[in-house]
Amino acid sequence: MRVEIWSDIACPWCYIGKARFEKGLAAFAHRDDIEIVHRSFELNPNLPMGVTAPVVDTLAKKYGRTLDEARAMEAHVASNAHSEGLEYRTEGRDSGNTFDVHRLLHLAKERGRQNELLDLAYRANFVEDRSVFDSETLVRLGVEAGLDETEVRAVVADETAYAEEVRADEREAAELGANGVPFFVLDRRYGISGGQPAEVFTQALEQAWQGRTVLQPVGGGDTDAAPACDVDGNC
Amino acid sequence: MRVEIWSDIACPWCYIGKARFEKGLAAFAHRDDIEIVHRSFELNPNLPMGVTAPVVDTLAKKYGRTLDEARAMEAHVASNAHSEGLEYRTEGRDSGNTFDVHRLLHLAKERGRQNELLDLAYRANFVEDRSVFDSETLVRLGVEAGLDETEVRAVVADETAYAEEVRADEREAAELGANGVPFFVLDRRYGISGGQPAEVFTQALEQAWQGRTVLQPVGGGDTDAAPACDVDGNC
Repeated sequence: MRVEIWSDIACPWCYIGKARFEKGLAAFAHRDDIEIVHRSFELNPNLPMGVTAPVVDTLAKKYGRTLDEARAMEAHVASNAHSEGLEYRTEGRDSGNTFDVHRLLHLAKERGRQNELLDLAYRANFVEDRSVFDSETLVRLGVEAGLDETEVRAVVADETAYAEEVRADEREAAELGANGVPFFVLDRRYGISGGQPAEVFTQALEQAWQGRTVLQPVGGGDTDAAPACDVDGNC
Repeated sequence: MRVEIWSDIACPWCYIGKARFEKGLAAFAHRDDIEIVHRSFELNPNLPMGVTAPVVDTLAKKYGRTLDEARAMEAHVASNAHSEGLEYRTEGRDSGNTFDVHRLLHLAKERGRQNELLDLAYRANFVEDRSVFDSETLVRLGVEAGLDETEVRAVVADETAYAEEVRADEREAAELGANGVPFFVLDRRYGISGGQPAEVFTQALEQAWQGRTVLQPVGGGDTDAAPACDVDGNC
């Protein structure tokens, strides 16, 4: 069974939701038969490239709150993160455009390193004093994820590299009716939104697993008349 | 949208059905948004490894026919192949165990060369005087498909390499109710059996495309209450 997860590296509920999903997955009997694909979603695609601002300032301005109120919002998120055993820094984080991170995640996907890079990028953004909006930091993260440095540098430097793949993921999210992230799609048939509790993910996986082998016929052709070779080798 | 195709290299209707599917796909408006995965299915998993026999002899014995009648069966298949613009040799082909070919197709899948190897293997089996049951020929086919020779040799020589991947594909086919091949599954939601006419495949793709964005909710959690960041960047 395949699970596709739309998320943004700048989305705290995606960071926390990933941990909750993984906990839910660990409790699922058929966890070894699950293939996971991460897909791109930008919360703020219109932020200018290369410009960053402290998250707390951005929150205060966006919601018309004082800095202390914005800090309290971050503290609330942090307490949720801590409940999942995740670190979360409430000060010193920047907001910015995540397009380049998503482009690099697509290279990592092609090289079988997507989950590694995603975890490193979340950690850089939410835990460490490293900016995912800085090109050189992105290169380091790519290399730490096991990618080839030359290849990573070329992708980071070329703003068109994997740009279409990011846009395609975002179009699909819109087509699937995703109004926010994290957004989980199981076998392109079942959907579940938000950073749900782990047990909700386990239940979602169990329901989708039950339904996964029920196929609807399409094409309108005559299956009995269509030439085939059967399980006994008769053609 | 993802299309998974279960087939066996020894199955003439898979060879012909692949061409028909590709013709149907070429007439489908969203053909560039289709990802194709080939999956393993053995028509005769119990044939001993390394033992081959002429196809015409095998057919005559299996169905209690004369050699001339068996040749007529092959000629019927050949005429279907020719209608699709495919070559098909009716004499000199062998039947045998295809497990090693399937294992190598899984290596090719990991290296992004699966379709190339599948086409070469079909061509070797149905057109050229090359035996896919011969290890050295398999190595050559892998190299022609763009794989690394050392890696191909290691996989061909080690009967456990990708064996589990082949078995997993076959278990899935059984779970999905596939009684024969070729068997096509669209987004794990829709199914279509047999070497159908190209226009049936086009229609199947169109139907599945229409339905692809309709997701069923799973997990039973409260989506409104689940924390998320929305499309306006509000978390």
